Amino acid sequence: MKSKILVTCGIAATALSLQADPEVPYPTGYRDWQHVKSMVIEQGHPLYTAFGGIHHLYANNEALKGYRDGRFPNGAVIIFDLLEAVHEGNTIGEGSRKVLGVMHKDEDKFSATGGWGFEGFAGGDPSRRVVAGNAATACFACHQPQKDRDYVFSALRD
Amino acid sequence: MKSKILVTCGIAATALSLQADPEVPYPTGYRDWQHVKSMVIEQGHPLYTAFGGIHHLYANNEALKGYRDGRFPNGAVIIFDLLEAVHEGNTIGEGSRKVLGVMHKDEDKFSATGGWGFEGFAGGDPSRRVVAGNAATACFACHQPQKDRDYVFSALRD
Repeated sequence: MKSKILVTCGIAATALSLQADPEVPYPTGYRDWQHVKSMVIEQGHPLYTAFGGIHHLYANNEALKGYRDGRFPNGAVIIFDLLEAVHEGNTIGEGSRKVLGVMHKDEDKFSATGGWGFEGFAGGDPSRRVVAGNAATACFACHQPQKDRDYVFSALRD
Repeated sequence: MKSKILVTCGIAATALSLQADPEVPYPTGYRDWQHVKSMVIEQGHPLYTAFGGIHHLYANNEALKGYRDGRFPNGAVIIFDLLEAVHEGNTIGEGSRKVLGVMHKDEDKFSATGGWGFEGFAGGDPSRRVVAGNAATACFACHQPQKDRDYVFSALRD
């Protein structure tokens, strides 16, 4: 019986260690959140490969508090919704979703990356995570110089 | 006394006729409404003079019902928020507000223009109305071919 308990504990410990990277939840309902601002990133920009297209930022209510106070509370979520930029007849319109980027504030879960969890969902698909355990190098490294603004680049506008 | 009453009535009638064009209310709080979609209109486009820049569409709850049902109820408001497009380092960002366009559904007040009131507020300033009594020619003429879609060009997207 004792060995059976030990084996069971071993399996449980392995499962725990496999789940060690805290996961950013998919931001259900984000299209109803407040539109913060937008930008087009064009060919020739150093971030074109990763972020070329037209992107919109959205914020939930906790993130709106953060934009106003300069310090984002736990539960704040900022969305970077990147769509293809479709050039047609002297317009730039929106094409399909390239990636849905998420910053999710949780000081405890994401203490290694400034209290923010970072994730990207390819094509907006909740099952296609493109950052996973690489947030420190893939995301936080670029945000780190923004420490005085709680690691956030964007600002609310009228 | 009789002539005094007649004069008073005459003044009242004149005031009424001066107010005959129904006014579209300024859409207070529209930046909290749902972001529908965005587009950049560039030089060379036939509407560049009027609508060049980056614009965002927002919808209130009644307008969201209209997008879903194909028929917009009274009280539906759609915003066309036009900002300067700022080209810088292979990005197109947002500059100052050029005009805040409004479509406001009220079948009775705006029966002459498909049930929609049209207005533009220069620079987003509630006191600078640029359409006023010219909605039929300045706005509705372009929207009229969209009759089957209740005179609306845009559509909701994911």
